[in-house]
Amino acid sequence: MSIAIDPTMMPNAFRHGDNENLPESAKHLIERRGELLAPAYRLFYKRPIEFVRGEGCWLYAVDGTCYLDAYNNVAGVGHANPVVVAAVANQLATLNTHTRYLDGIVLDYAERLLATFPPDLGRVMFTCTGSEANDLGLRVAQAHTGARGVIVTANAYHGVTEATAAASPALGPYRGACDHIRVVRPPLSSSDADGSARFVEEMRGAIASLQRDGHGVAAFLCDTIFSTDGVLPSLPGLTEAIDLVRAAGGLYFADEVQAGFGRVGSAFWGFARHQLVPDMVSMGKPMGNGYPVAALVARPSVLETFSRNNRYFNTFGGSSVAAAAAMATLGEIQSDGFLDRVDRTGAYLQEGLNGLRQHHRTIKDVRGTGLSVGVEIASGTSSASERAERIVNFLADHRVLISATGPQANVLKIRPPLVFGAEQVDLLISTLDQALKAIE
Amino acid sequence: MSIAIDPTMMPNAFRHGDNENLPESAKHLIERRGELLAPAYRLFYKRPIEFVRGEGCWLYAVDGTCYLDAYNNVAGVGHANPVVVAAVANQLATLNTHTRYLDGIVLDYAERLLATFPPDLGRVMFTCTGSEANDLGLRVAQAHTGARGVIVTANAYHGVTEATAAASPALGPYRGACDHIRVVRPPLSSSDADGSARFVEEMRGAIASLQRDGHGVAAFLCDTIFSTDGVLPSLPGLTEAIDLVRAAGGLYFADEVQAGFGRVGSAFWGFARHQLVPDMVSMGKPMGNGYPVAALVARPSVLETFSRNNRYFNTFGGSSVAAAAAMATLGEIQSDGFLDRVDRTGAYLQEGLNGLRQHHRTIKDVRGTGLSVGVEIASGTSSASERAERIVNFLADHRVLISATGPQANVLKIRPPLVFGAEQVDLLISTLDQALKAIE
Repeated sequence: MSIAIDPTMMPNAFRHGDNENLPESAKHLIERRGELLAPAYRLFYKRPIEFVRGEGCWLYAVDGTCYLDAYNNVAGVGHANPVVVAAVANQLATLNTHTRYLDGIVLDYAERLLATFPPDLGRVMFTCTGSEANDLGLRVAQAHTGARGVIVTANAYHGVTEATAAASPALGPYRGACDHIRVVRPPLSSSDADGSARFVEEMRGAIASLQRDGHGVAAFLCDTIFSTDGVLPSLPGLTEAIDLVRAAGGLYFADEVQAGFGRVGSAFWGFARHQLVPDMVSMGKPMGNGYPVAALVARPSVLETFSRNNRYFNTFGGSSVAAAAAMATLGEIQSDGFLDRVDRTGAYLQEGLNGLRQHHRTIKDVRGTGLSVGVEIASGTSSASERAERIVNFLADHRVLISATGPQANVLKIRPPLVFGAEQVDLLISTLDQALKAIE
Repeated sequence: MSIAIDPTMMPNAFRHGDNENLPESAKHLIERRGELLAPAYRLFYKRPIEFVRGEGCWLYAVDGTCYLDAYNNVAGVGHANPVVVAAVANQLATLNTHTRYLDGIVLDYAERLLATFPPDLGRVMFTCTGSEANDLGLRVAQAHTGARGVIVTANAYHGVTEATAAASPALGPYRGACDHIRVVRPPLSSSDADGSARFVEEMRGAIASLQRDGHGVAAFLCDTIFSTDGVLPSLPGLTEAIDLVRAAGGLYFADEVQAGFGRVGSAFWGFARHQLVPDMVSMGKPMGNGYPVAALVARPSVLETFSRNNRYFNTFGGSSVAAAAAMATLGEIQSDGFLDRVDRTGAYLQEGLNGLRQHHRTIKDVRGTGLSVGVEIASGTSSASERAERIVNFLADHRVLISATGPQANVLKIRPPLVFGAEQVDLLISTLDQALKAIE
């Protein structure tokens, strides 16, 4: 399915050795990275950028230029959000302990977080990263079901621990032992009419295969905006596929690291858009607006076997400062009008992109929800992925940050801080218009 | 080996339902924890404590009382250290991006961190937690050696991800699939004269067993102060055992999450005390004085295969703020006289404990290095673990925090913030003297 030849490559990666048109300062930093960090690290863009300051949806480079950030989803309530900065600074100066002492702060946050979920999802466990939350969730699912098999989508990314990398086909063929992992292909595009039926059929096959091989079905782990699968806001067969998983004894485990905390707008969680109630939900990235905090939320019954056989402690997970950061971030997201604005800005963004599509055959499809939008690029004189890469780099050269995704790396990934507004959309659209003209 | 009947139990855990002598506010918080968090969470002490403020080596409870913290190793340079708080607050208000952009801060820190290692250990990868660093290190070791087997000590703890929990016998029998894990028993005590020879013999057996079962030897993962194995500062067979691992193609992977960053005094790293040079080193807990940051440091050659086959990204690992927190923390640790004071205070602490040992037969052994000290408790009319638990709780009731460790849970674990001084030692010793009198 994947066109990637080099398994370590990723969409929009800087190619090492490709140093020609870089300023001396960038060359120097790239050289230092080579001397200090493992070679497994990757940079974005043909001309990697050094940032020195962030504010709202703007990032300032070392040369004084200002970039519109239409990519970074961690700083959901804005780079250097002053409310979150103050909450972290105050709590750090006061107390930062862990869950083996009594602490009202983490409980206040747990209560407020759980109130955003359907009532069945009644318990939370705190981790530091989405990888840890997915890793823990898989352990919980395996304890609960007695099965080991995990089903994921064909270009899914769920983390970097041994267990979650194995469940991340996007990382390539050398991601570890994955005998117990099966993949199902979501539709490749809005125009892939048969995609939903095929998806359900592949789910049936994946379940049968796991059962035949003695793994059984522990969980279907799935990001409901399918962000690395090319951004798919709608998948008609999803409910049917999840019913099949549950009938086989498996859990529906929603990975909301990408979709959660208002990324999809006023629905708040990605699964909520589909009228689904998962058995477990993982979350992370934007949860503390950059402070490392993540979590697993689950039905109490699902946690029983794991909790009977295991104790759980995560030094930094659910610390006083993590809870304060997450509380301040959630307060911002739930402030008056914030999520309505995400809905409005997202709709305005898709309107603008569809407008471009009228004039540029390079755009094959525009899809998304809230402020998670994918723009599928058609092939032309060069391949779709090459064209997507040229657009992404044109935008970066013109001070707008996005990236590319999907199994063919031909989907522009637009996923700005949620404080993005109409003015920023206008700037993004006009710069993208120039990019499309330049590559045609 | 372990006396634990309930696999979810841990030394010094609060027993749920044991609410009798608790203040109403504690009862209420415990009830809320039950309603909000997974039951896998554990509290410390018979009377769990709610803290509201920390400063240096002091923690202040909600009732206004002040506790001497002789246990928490995360706040190495002191609770609410103002230099670290300011560094985090300033960087958060300025910029917090990740390793896919160029960033001088993380490279400056990497350089300063690597300078604390032998020159062979020349590359770093950043994670958020020690669990993630150990998990990544095992992936790297398995890629490098082509083997899967991992050897750990009999009561080791290395993390909570699927891969690291499997390598953590301290977590009990339900920690997941561990066919590829073998354990070796370090000496149980300074008085265990045959312990070192047995340790080497068991290492030979573990290697042979992994080879026979087709796993091969990827790594011996080991904390060189053996903190959960009962605190063992000296193990004469260690070098010989590591030679055996290397002869079998495996790596020596030093887990410095407990021992690192000056915990052992001016040696700085636990392995350095043994004149060993590991192939890989993991670190975490005190690295950012409570800000979540951790890392894996390795020989460049060890990282080659992993890096050829995998790209690596950790959203929060090596972010600008993580680097700023770690840099400020390292600056404090490397400030004039800081580590000498750890050596001095540690020696004074052991002197005081040995003084108590002259008068109390309850103390069987005192051992440690720097500010990581274990006090082995002898059995008396009750078991050693019960007596240790009574001492730990007597101390907590008298406003001094320590805990217990070891396969028999009979070793007092004393591991204060590194800003501990002679006055604090005096208070700890005099309170422990009272505790020993009370339980005799």
